[in-house]
Amino acid sequence: MSKSFLPVRGTKDFLPSEMEVREKIREVILKTYQKYGFNQIKTPIIEDIDLLLGSDGGDNLKLIYKILKRGEKLNLETDNIDDLVDLGLRYDLTVPLARFYINNKEKLLPIFKSIQIDDVFRAERPQRGRSRQFTQCDIDIINDESINSEIEIIYVAGQTLLNLGFKDFTFKISDRRLLNEILANIGFDRDSFADICISVDKLDKIGLEGVKTELIKKEYDNDKVTKLIGDLTNIKTKGINGLKELKLNDNVISEVETIVNNSNDLANGKYQVEFDINIIRGQGYYTASVFEVYLSGFDGASGGGGRYNDMIEKLNGFNVPAVGFSFGFERLFIIISENNLLMEKKEKLALIYEADDFSEVVKLMEEYSAQFNVTTIKRRKNFGYQLTNLKENGYTKYVLFKEKIIENLG
Amino acid sequence: MSKSFLPVRGTKDFLPSEMEVREKIREVILKTYQKYGFNQIKTPIIEDIDLLLGSDGGDNLKLIYKILKRGEKLNLETDNIDDLVDLGLRYDLTVPLARFYINNKEKLLPIFKSIQIDDVFRAERPQRGRSRQFTQCDIDIINDESINSEIEIIYVAGQTLLNLGFKDFTFKISDRRLLNEILANIGFDRDSFADICISVDKLDKIGLEGVKTELIKKEYDNDKVTKLIGDLTNIKTKGINGLKELKLNDNVISEVETIVNNSNDLANGKYQVEFDINIIRGQGYYTASVFEVYLSGFDGASGGGGRYNDMIEKLNGFNVPAVGFSFGFERLFIIISENNLLMEKKEKLALIYEADDFSEVVKLMEEYSAQFNVTTIKRRKNFGYQLTNLKENGYTKYVLFKEKIIENLG
Repeated sequence: MSKSFLPVRGTKDFLPSEMEVREKIREVILKTYQKYGFNQIKTPIIEDIDLLLGSDGGDNLKLIYKILKRGEKLNLETDNIDDLVDLGLRYDLTVPLARFYINNKEKLLPIFKSIQIDDVFRAERPQRGRSRQFTQCDIDIINDESINSEIEIIYVAGQTLLNLGFKDFTFKISDRRLLNEILANIGFDRDSFADICISVDKLDKIGLEGVKTELIKKEYDNDKVTKLIGDLTNIKTKGINGLKELKLNDNVISEVETIVNNSNDLANGKYQVEFDINIIRGQGYYTASVFEVYLSGFDGASGGGGRYNDMIEKLNGFNVPAVGFSFGFERLFIIISENNLLMEKKEKLALIYEADDFSEVVKLMEEYSAQFNVTTIKRRKNFGYQLTNLKENGYTKYVLFKEKIIENLG
Repeated sequence: MSKSFLPVRGTKDFLPSEMEVREKIREVILKTYQKYGFNQIKTPIIEDIDLLLGSDGGDNLKLIYKILKRGEKLNLETDNIDDLVDLGLRYDLTVPLARFYINNKEKLLPIFKSIQIDDVFRAERPQRGRSRQFTQCDIDIINDESINSEIEIIYVAGQTLLNLGFKDFTFKISDRRLLNEILANIGFDRDSFADICISVDKLDKIGLEGVKTELIKKEYDNDKVTKLIGDLTNIKTKGINGLKELKLNDNVISEVETIVNNSNDLANGKYQVEFDINIIRGQGYYTASVFEVYLSGFDGASGGGGRYNDMIEKLNGFNVPAVGFSFGFERLFIIISENNLLMEKKEKLALIYEADDFSEVVKLMEEYSAQFNVTTIKRRKNFGYQLTNLKENGYTKYVLFKEKIIENLG
């Protein structure tokens, strides 16, 4: 009887008080997404292991939970453990969305705007803030090559944060093609772009000097690194004008400029939208725009996304452009919980009874339920302790059956 | 490029039109449960494999998805495949609830009323209506030994069905102890009770004669079987009075009678609550009351539950009584979809644009969104096809940017 009843390592049990907040966040996000014509879909948590392992998930592929084959005598005399596996738990919602779109496209609008609010799984090494099961809230626009998708998605994400009660936040936008062009112009080898981007991604944390030190340490050419840092310094100072001075592709610059200007126009001063060259994002599948949102007063991004025009083509050969955005639900949950940003609408009332005639108790509960979130509970011998306990569980009022006098708790 | 993009065998992709109905059902069930003081919790989808395999899940244990250990060199030179496994996907929400209660009981009210709406997994042989991933909607009352729990849970389940739009349904109630006592009095061996119950469970489908034939075929004693069928016939005819004639345990009869009478009183004629001796339910963990709900016009139960007083004791040695109820969400979804029982509140409007100034389009979307569920969409060359396609996707109105004249679709 000395067993552990903790949830599996790296996962969490969510208590009622936590679920109230999580459910409210989910509801606000879902209703806002829906208000602007996005459509909720749902895909299975289990996917074919080959689909998952064949995706551009980068390091996430190492973190996939693998499911043993069933219903057959497994041959253990194999050199390859993967022979025993046919399914895996999804590590994000984008790969399943691509499969879903290909499987169902005849039943969807030609430009498909999807919502997914669902759990994903990564066998992370347990550390602060990294859960092995966590919720993602994705919106995606599939099959629209125009930057209207970016403008619409940033707008809807902004409205969602406003509806969640946030007052000060900034979207930061870049385009993968810009940094790639800068690196190519300087003469870096194309194979090294991803590795260099990993260093540039740290710019906000370690500064330009830190990026320079890291790149030199990685043994990139000193002159090229110096030129890169010079270019980045110029762009960080002058913004989009800094890009123009470098004579990068006009179309790409114009796209970024239009997204930023239109989005700021639509933000109407309630939040900011800025160009920022060091927005990179980890996923291998982004091909053009990339963006993140930062809540004032909190470190790190609370959501991000971008354009991934090649993902569906890599699966089935048809070119279908796509843009997506995902909120870090667990992060929003922590920020909103710790700052009491979303309050419960209905007060909680305990209807405490001693009588035997329980159906009368239920009738009274029904009566109070219009005004309160009401629970029936039997009176305990230690009534003082019971009231304290109710208060600790978020109850603000109680009423004794059949006295019908509502008392405040504490 | 000839890969399959179907969801994993036995699982489903849910389309926007399906998710609208599912989300509405989820919302009605959750809000109704919450209205009566139940509290939503959430447990991980992955649980320790030993917890799952050690539970009273009966045949469900054979259907558990098993997850391969990670992060270590797996030793394939083992005779036991289970050495490679440390986690499994949960097959129901009751076993995780028991673990949750033990793990968190200091943070919960002494009588804990829980809600879980979540997915479970069973590697069923694919057949009609049996999904490998499906949603359960559970309410449970933990740590109340009184039948007030049964009365409250049946009331809340009844209100939920009324809120879902159902007008005619019946709860059927029995108590595991009744049939056990009848079998013991006749002289059947205690070890055969479970097997006999499997046959009696089929009474509604195959009739009393069918049950008799099956039991004889299973080589039970002819006289005893005849006595059993006689007793059952008497009870089916006379109801609770039939139990009284058999001089079964008065307390048990009185409990069933009180649950039925109180529940009918609370139903106020809007639905029925009846005693029915052949309500059995499959799960091994039920110890007393068992109940199911039947929607008029649809075969089979749409939900069920009962009292499981031993489950937590088997885990940690402490006697904690419990009663639970679960709706068959997938069944309700099919019935509600096929009969259009829950309609969308907001009409869907497509805002069709050709202009370049997309932020103006978004502003107009915002304007219409108060009244409609509105999506922006670019005008296609084949405009007639586009309108047909919108109509097929549930849109009833469209408006052209910037004409602002709302037109009906079809």
